[in-house]
Amino acid sequence: MAHINVPEGVPGIRSLVMFRPETGKPLYELAQVLLRRKSTLSEAERELIAAYVSKRNDTMFCMMSHAAASKAFYGDDATIVDDVLKDMHQANISNKMKALLHIAGKVQILGSAVKQEDIDAARTEGATDKEIHDTVLIAAAFSMFNRYVDGLASFTPTDEKEYEAMGIRMAEKGYITPPTPKGGR
Amino acid sequence: MAHINVPEGVPGIRSLVMFRPETGKPLYELAQVLLRRKSTLSEAERELIAAYVSKRNDTMFCMMSHAAASKAFYGDDATIVDDVLKDMHQANISNKMKALLHIAGKVQILGSAVKQEDIDAARTEGATDKEIHDTVLIAAAFSMFNRYVDGLASFTPTDEKEYEAMGIRMAEKGYITPPTPKGGR
Repeated sequence: MAHINVPEGVPGIRSLVMFRPETGKPLYELAQVLLRRKSTLSEAERELIAAYVSKRNDTMFCMMSHAAASKAFYGDDATIVDDVLKDMHQANISNKMKALLHIAGKVQILGSAVKQEDIDAARTEGATDKEIHDTVLIAAAFSMFNRYVDGLASFTPTDEKEYEAMGIRMAEKGYITPPTPKGGR
Repeated sequence: MAHINVPEGVPGIRSLVMFRPETGKPLYELAQVLLRRKSTLSEAERELIAAYVSKRNDTMFCMMSHAAASKAFYGDDATIVDDVLKDMHQANISNKMKALLHIAGKVQILGSAVKQEDIDAARTEGATDKEIHDTVLIAAAFSMFNRYVDGLASFTPTDEKEYEAMGIRMAEKGYITPPTPKGGR
């Protein structure tokens, strides 16, 4: 049971956005810009950063759903996602991506944990200012989404198949605000 | 020096929003809805929750600026702000506000740190679902803003007078996206 009276059986952040559409709008817009708009980081890579941070925050709902979205984008290479979540250093991703995930992991701890040498290492591997910015903001944003979902104990499905379908929807439709419940608020 | 090439001398999140206006827009909109729109929590109280979480995350810029905004709203009772930041249990605020700050402090640690008993305690003091929701989301959002500002090492003024002026501006104007630098991006 969620800590507040949200629509029953609606998973994760969706139920919270239905409870409070005024804050839901900018939250979904932020996710859409960060994870879907044109970027030199692929959608698969950005969803992977989101899943990686959510795993570190132990937020099952965000981790499973964004891992599933990342897999949908990786397609034939979907095993990369579980490999990164297990041990990103051993995974078959670029050194640039490893350096960016390292920065995301620092942000998950605290902003001040990011050191100049972490930034330098990402630049050496070819990361641009915009890629570094977006990595920090994705990691910071999921430090918010994770706390939001867990702090209000919103509904977390446990069936892996449900996340698979969710990931495909997230990949196809992006982050569109759910409809306001009937009768409005 | 910030970790990325943002406008020099522009403090805190403002410089980051000028670097990346597309993400700045939903970020400012979120702050405006949470901290300024009509609520049964006063603007002074909501800014205080923001300052309290920022202090716990040791983010000087957000702590000083939102404390200053809270003081601007408290007016003659502005000493409440420093009292809360020193020890909220001893401060002259309502028991409901203490229970909500307690929840915000849990969210700052991690969402799953919020327990049913924390929610029950806030309800006993008269907190509504919407107040509990907004407290959790303000605390989660500042867990993001703090990481964003510190993770990119954006400019933090050290002169207390500068924050006083900033707080008055924040109280009067709210959260309006700064202009895009000349030449556009």
